[in-house]
Amino acid sequence: MAGSIYGRLFQISTWGESHGKGIGVVIDGCPAGLSLSEEDIQVYLDRRKPGQSQFTTGRKESDMAQIWSGVFEGRTTGTPISILVQNQDQRSRDYGNIMNTYRPGHADYTFDEKYGFRDYRGGGRSSGRETTARVAAGAVAAKILKELGIEIHAYTKAIGPVSVPENEYHPEEIFQNPIYMPSNAYAQKASAYLEECIKNQDSSGGIIECVVTGMPVGIGDTVFEKLDANLAKAMLSIGAVKGFEIGDGFKVADTKGSINNDSFHTKDGRITKDTNHAGGVLGGMSDGSKIIFRAAVKPTPSISQPQSTVTKDGENTEMIIKGRHDPVIVPRAVVVVESMAAITILDLLFTNMSARMDKLKNFYGTEK
Amino acid sequence: MAGSIYGRLFQISTWGESHGKGIGVVIDGCPAGLSLSEEDIQVYLDRRKPGQSQFTTGRKESDMAQIWSGVFEGRTTGTPISILVQNQDQRSRDYGNIMNTYRPGHADYTFDEKYGFRDYRGGGRSSGRETTARVAAGAVAAKILKELGIEIHAYTKAIGPVSVPENEYHPEEIFQNPIYMPSNAYAQKASAYLEECIKNQDSSGGIIECVVTGMPVGIGDTVFEKLDANLAKAMLSIGAVKGFEIGDGFKVADTKGSINNDSFHTKDGRITKDTNHAGGVLGGMSDGSKIIFRAAVKPTPSISQPQSTVTKDGENTEMIIKGRHDPVIVPRAVVVVESMAAITILDLLFTNMSARMDKLKNFYGTEK
Amino acid sequence: MAGSIYGRLFQISTWGESHGKGIGVVIDGCPAGLSLSEEDIQVYLDRRKPGQSQFTTGRKESDMAQIWSGVFEGRTTGTPISILVQNQDQRSRDYGNIMNTYRPGHADYTFDEKYGFRDYRGGGRSSGRETTARVAAGAVAAKILKELGIEIHAYTKAIGPVSVPENEYHPEEIFQNPIYMPSNAYAQKASAYLEECIKNQDSSGGIIECVVTGMPVGIGDTVFEKLDANLAKAMLSIGAVKGFEIGDGFKVADTKGSINNDSFHTKDGRITKDTNHAGGVLGGMSDGSKIIFRAAVKPTPSISQPQSTVTKDGENTEMIIKGRHDPVIVPRAVVVVESMAAITILDLLFTNMSARMDKLKNFYGTEK
Amino acid sequence: MAGSIYGRLFQISTWGESHGKGIGVVIDGCPAGLSLSEEDIQVYLDRRKPGQSQFTTGRKESDMAQIWSGVFEGRTTGTPISILVQNQDQRSRDYGNIMNTYRPGHADYTFDEKYGFRDYRGGGRSSGRETTARVAAGAVAAKILKELGIEIHAYTKAIGPVSVPENEYHPEEIFQNPIYMPSNAYAQKASAYLEECIKNQDSSGGIIECVVTGMPVGIGDTVFEKLDANLAKAMLSIGAVKGFEIGDGFKVADTKGSINNDSFHTKDGRITKDTNHAGGVLGGMSDGSKIIFRAAVKPTPSISQPQSTVTKDGENTEMIIKGRHDPVIVPRAVVVVESMAAITILDLLFTNMSARMDKLKNFYGTEK
Repeated sequence: MAGSIYGRLFQISTWGESHGKGIGVVIDGCPAGLSLSEEDIQVYLDRRKPGQSQFTTGRKESDMAQIWSGVFEGRTTGTPISILVQNQDQRSRDYGNIMNTYRPGHADYTFDEKYGFRDYRGGGRSSGRETTARVAAGAVAAKILKELGIEIHAYTKAIGPVSVPENEYHPEEIFQNPIYMPSNAYAQKASAYLEECIKNQDSSGGIIECVVTGMPVGIGDTVFEKLDANLAKAMLSIGAVKGFEIGDGFKVADTKGSINNDSFHTKDGRITKDTNHAGGVLGGMSDGSKIIFRAAVKPTPSISQPQSTVTKDGENTEMIIKGRHDPVIVPRAVVVVESMAAITILDLLFTNMSARMDKLKNFYGTEK
Repeated sequence: MAGSIYGRLFQISTWGESHGKGIGVVIDGCPAGLSLSEEDIQVYLDRRKPGQSQFTTGRKESDMAQIWSGVFEGRTTGTPISILVQNQDQRSRDYGNIMNTYRPGHADYTFDEKYGFRDYRGGGRSSGRETTARVAAGAVAAKILKELGIEIHAYTKAIGPVSVPENEYHPEEIFQNPIYMPSNAYAQKASAYLEECIKNQDSSGGIIECVVTGMPVGIGDTVFEKLDANLAKAMLSIGAVKGFEIGDGFKVADTKGSINNDSFHTKDGRITKDTNHAGGVLGGMSDGSKIIFRAAVKPTPSISQPQSTVTKDGENTEMIIKGRHDPVIVPRAVVVVESMAAITILDLLFTNMSARMDKLKNFYGTEK
Repeated sequence: MAGSIYGRLFQISTWGESHGKGIGVVIDGCPAGLSLSEEDIQVYLDRRKPGQSQFTTGRKESDMAQIWSGVFEGRTTGTPISILVQNQDQRSRDYGNIMNTYRPGHADYTFDEKYGFRDYRGGGRSSGRETTARVAAGAVAAKILKELGIEIHAYTKAIGPVSVPENEYHPEEIFQNPIYMPSNAYAQKASAYLEECIKNQDSSGGIIECVVTGMPVGIGDTVFEKLDANLAKAMLSIGAVKGFEIGDGFKVADTKGSINNDSFHTKDGRITKDTNHAGGVLGGMSDGSKIIFRAAVKPTPSISQPQSTVTKDGENTEMIIKGRHDPVIVPRAVVVVESMAAITILDLLFTNMSARMDKLKNFYGTEK
Repeated sequence: MAGSIYGRLFQISTWGESHGKGIGVVIDGCPAGLSLSEEDIQVYLDRRKPGQSQFTTGRKESDMAQIWSGVFEGRTTGTPISILVQNQDQRSRDYGNIMNTYRPGHADYTFDEKYGFRDYRGGGRSSGRETTARVAAGAVAAKILKELGIEIHAYTKAIGPVSVPENEYHPEEIFQNPIYMPSNAYAQKASAYLEECIKNQDSSGGIIECVVTGMPVGIGDTVFEKLDANLAKAMLSIGAVKGFEIGDGFKVADTKGSINNDSFHTKDGRITKDTNHAGGVLGGMSDGSKIIFRAAVKPTPSISQPQSTVTKDGENTEMIIKGRHDPVIVPRAVVVVESMAAITILDLLFTNMSARMDKLKNFYGTEK
């Protein structure tokens, strides 16, 4: 079934398997006239790349972005942008037990049931490596958003039990630690926790938080195409994500209307709100406040401990997954969250342009 | 912007405002040959209808479903099914302060900013009344799913601080209390809490849980069109929902791979799992277990307490929202959750049919 | 299968059968702030309505448009517009032979094969009556286009052998004859020919031509979403249309590049062309000239002569189709052509808005 | 604007410019388990490749297809198939006058107006070279269709005034002449005509006809997603196509119902028709007969004669287009027509699978 194309007007079409020749994305609907280079994309890919720290897989991939179309003399032409990343570390290996045995927490079993067989090498299409393509597209979307005054920043809020409290946020520290936490102090605690996980041949989950600033008011539709609904899909489309919440999220279950409602008031001639329990969205539309949402990320399913499972033929067995794996997915997924948010928001900005007659007439030059 | 059409092959197109002539939905892509009557739809609508208990608004709406097309001699014809519900209690009122003042927690302000003006009567299109149309479509989707052996059951897990623990679930009690909780005992506690809210002119949030049984393995795509990603969008598209989680959800942040991975094993010749931390989805595809997910619902924003806000012209003011309002959205939203889940899952079942050559050839009769 | 929703950002969802309760359309994505009344729609419906002349069916339908949503205080709100036309002349009849016998040239056989059975009353969903809904939506699209300075005019170019030569066009006469020909003189010839057809219990085909003026340059995409490709689909989606051509159309097969190329030149500071073999489209995009295209319409398949055919059970038989039928579809289809063209072009205008960074930045207010 | 993605369930996403690094396509929604090699694709590409005869451009392109994803151990995996063709003959040239002057009959002017600037090298994205990607995808679609018993054959019906009459068709001769005509004798006449065109620095138009056999009955929807409507869009999406007709096409304008209706009768227990004026489609759905349609192709706009035109700055000028160009587009477009037809039909076969409850239940195994 078709499921690798995302978006309505800013559309991305991703392809590639973990151990195939490469990974890529075609971006359709990028406006013409954006200054764009491979370097713009590389900056994003480098944040997702393996081998950045002791907490990421030892796989060697330089993940060099090549632009194959859609850019001419340094500017986008309005035609599809094809970005390709060649796989390097795809040498033949002994995939023995992965080939015939279903790894717990992975898509091996469901893939086989759906399609009849699978490219078992490194998880094939279900590998986290697929997100390389999303990040390449995200770099483009984020660059456009920036020109429109919109910025998206994600970071690690929690790793296992180590969660950065809001009053300890130091945004400037996010890029100072390999975990992308807004606090070097908490990042150290998290590192210690992860080292413990590695020692125990185990892995950890965590939470990524994302903030969007500069959004115009009114982006998103009031029924199905709500801004938050689209962000929720975007987040859950990332492999290991098991939960999404916006603003106060699950905390709203045990609160009261009198507390949860954000009061409007006018300040300096602009309508604004002092609190932001809603997370920047009212009735599915951006309300001009910061958009704040979170994604819960499960622990890396690939652990070196022996695990009970079954073979393709249904025989009960025990398996040990060889190789080095990230003890936590979170830090490398931070830029994936940013990318999916950027792509999603940009698409809504595009579809929003025909919402009003006055703006439509102004656009097409018939408004006096 | 277009945002009231949902789905890819089982498509619903909803319309209608809170105080307009009516509410309706057009279902496009319903298979031919389904036995369908207005009664089938009514059963669902009655679960969402106002006036069921002291915890629902006093608005008088019989919400009678009329089928206008797509059904002939009691069976669906494969053509669009138009379902219409006339609004009854739409008499002209004094909407005075709603018209010019922005209710906190509502879409009044964002709607005005996006569209330039709004139908202020009862929230217009942003009213929860819009979900009537979804429920009508959900009744049809659920009926088809049932014929395929798939059942969807939602219920209230929590109201404010009153949360039913899993070991106290009595599914047979769900329809025995007005709160749709799987425990009459907890429903009583919740009722007491809600009465307190009413007394304090306040409202409460809560959590809805939903369980899907009978799913074939492999439904959903492994990249963007993941089953859980689509469910997340479906849930967040419901007005007051601020969070979504599947399986262990946000709890995965503070767990370990060795615990979170569900081991496979073979029982009675079928591959199965003893635990279900994943909530029935692996790599975006259904894994044959029960699908379990939750939605966090915010407290009703309409409360009778005075609230600070601004007028359309940006003047700071205080407003009191008149009329009786549900002190909690959760019980009436239970069937909305079921409906959106049914519509979403059915659509994925349809798109999944072309996933394999062998099944495709078998379908079109060329497989020997 | 889903197939009654059309468009990407200006989306219409039509429903209804020939002899069901009614026919309707939901328009999703109509910009807010358009002045719109039922009368605006009625003007269009009246041009399609049966019973306008001796050449249209005797079915009595007043075809009164009712707007059920999306309009508030005379203006569109940006939310779905539901338009409903009740069927009046739907009294029970003797459908005897239509029910069990397949009418040649109709969808009876293919419908039964696809769906297993059908609503045989008056052709059900396959009836030309379905276009009522398209015309209602077309009236809205055309009104928006007009505010953008774009006008669409269709007319009958040919009925059987009677074809109006270009040098005999009198556009002001189009609404002066029941055939909607741009020449009363040719309309008389066509009338005589049609009367002959009626006498012989036969029917005639014809050609509808359509002209679009005021198009901005650059509307349409250069690959799949070409303006002409979309118009072609729009035209062939109308029941009896068997051919589409733009500009010189099929004549290009036997011409030469030196003749067919339209030379550019500058006049009054504007780039223009003296000839218009291309019909106003270059590389899939509007080129600023008039857009001219034609649709070939087959003769009404319902004729009163005895015809050989088969029953549902495959028995060879002869059938006579009772009742009065239009001896030609063309005149009533003229407004359907205009409507589908309007809907199609408007949708492309919407999707085109995000084509350029400079315009995007200007729209969202970040261009200095 | 997004416009390079085509299809609903069998989706293709094409990219690439005439003189960029390469041309490619991502196929999303290809069923798993299809045997597929680069050779399968190459056979199709070779039919479109330049340099096959004196009537095709001298550009040197080996057009070697590389599969980068979606195929494992010789079979499709159900994941996106990325096919890439590197451009070879993309050496830097003197594009001088093309860069600043608008070629008549080309998209230079409209592209500049839409996007603000363009990749002028060889027409950039508007070049016929873009169809390489469609043909690569068409090869895959055609292979699947063949396994379902459906075959698509296109050929040249006419070049300029040389048209093969139906009673002179010799299908076995199609691949025996460089023009792909079903008659070597007429191909010789056409060759003589084309040589004359070359001598006169001119070009010719023509007509491509396409026949589809083996279609199940009922494919296509009865309203917007008609089989013929989709084919019309597919054909007009090909650069030089200016007209589309199915069955008798434009001839229906001057015929009568009594002639145009194809009578049903039963032969050998199967319902069939002796005539096929409809071209295999009734009410938008395939009727089990051969599907026959035609596309009118304009003369190559690039001719060596001096032509009047304007510069980017609007100055009137005369230009001579250098280089060798195909004097006719038709022969190389034959396989493009086949490809677009295959992709379009396959997509409708996929969406059709959920049309009936009985088949749906049978597919998901709940029908007893």
